[in-house]
Amino acid sequence: MGFFISFEGIDGAGKSTQVQRLARRLAALGFDVVTVREPGGTPLGETLREILRNPVREMDPRAEACLYAAARAELVDRVILPALRAGKVVLADRFTDSTLAYQGAGRGLSVELLSALNAFVTQGLSPDCTVIIDLPVAAALARVGAPGERDRMERLGPAFFSRVREYYLHLAGQDPTRYLVVDGGRAPEAVEAEIFRLVKEALGRCTR
Amino acid sequence: MGFFISFEGIDGAGKSTQVQRLARRLAALGFDVVTVREPGGTPLGETLREILRNPVREMDPRAEACLYAAARAELVDRVILPALRAGKVVLADRFTDSTLAYQGAGRGLSVELLSALNAFVTQGLSPDCTVIIDLPVAAALARVGAPGERDRMERLGPAFFSRVREYYLHLAGQDPTRYLVVDGGRAPEAVEAEIFRLVKEALGRCTR
Repeated sequence: MGFFISFEGIDGAGKSTQVQRLARRLAALGFDVVTVREPGGTPLGETLREILRNPVREMDPRAEACLYAAARAELVDRVILPALRAGKVVLADRFTDSTLAYQGAGRGLSVELLSALNAFVTQGLSPDCTVIIDLPVAAALARVGAPGERDRMERLGPAFFSRVREYYLHLAGQDPTRYLVVDGGRAPEAVEAEIFRLVKEALGRCTR
Repeated sequence: MGFFISFEGIDGAGKSTQVQRLARRLAALGFDVVTVREPGGTPLGETLREILRNPVREMDPRAEACLYAAARAELVDRVILPALRAGKVVLADRFTDSTLAYQGAGRGLSVELLSALNAFVTQGLSPDCTVIIDLPVAAALARVGAPGERDRMERLGPAFFSRVREYYLHLAGQDPTRYLVVDGGRAPEAVEAEIFRLVKEALGRCTR
């Protein structure tokens, strides 16, 4: 089996950038790296991504959770599990913790029910480690563009994102081995270097 | 609160026809009747219906279950619950039992996990009664059109639909008060008359 790393954090924290930077670093070490993003990464997932991001689309929070879950089921079954079975390193821009943080802490749905939904669609797969890029809400929202250009999730506002951020830090406190919290407020190069160092340590613990 | 009746049965059993016929009968008695179909009945639901029926679309069974659940969450929250709160009679062409029969018995997913998913998206709502239109698989499939014209679900084949049919009858055996099984192999008028008689009895039990 390969190694599975998820990236989490509020919108604007810099996850997409850092996923690509870590992928290049690990590829340079000789790892066979696959990057995916949620929702997306499959034909069905990309269709659902458009629905979930469309700012004119309204939906019940439970429907929202189920659409993310559907995209995840497809991504796990068609992309992530086959890549891990082939011994690759998979980097995911968001995974199950996004559901707990956004639809649980953010929307107010039951974290217990959402955990069951996650277990159902992941076939029990859990990341080997999770990089949480932490950033104050105001700084993150300043990066996602003007309010009129934000997608349906980015529009949720500071109080929502504060709950999401706090929940990520709560998760990290529960399992400091799995969760690697990095300060996303620095230059991308500094964030990249710290993530690379922490991930190399995690890989070392795993392959030793 | 109003009264909630779901219609279940394999593809081709005649549910859509009988939903419309019962709606006319109940309206003639003075009931305020709302009819819905699954997946569908909301803008999001109709978008998901197209995705779920498209025969060129492949998807993991768990993703399929989540998409039906998303459509149901939206339908319950935006249409069914408001109608019931307004004292109306709601007739649904498919509801939670379709998930148990098709994705559980048919696809082989855990009925227990699917029941939890149903509870999550229905906010605990359960039909007051469920009409199961029963029909042998060969007779039902003969009604859904030539194989080349069938949608993604209709293409699943006789063995799949046999498992679905048997599961519906199993559910009916567990709760003969809620489930009203009618023989769908007769003329539509005869099926209509029996459903109307059984539903009037069920309404009488409830409003007495």
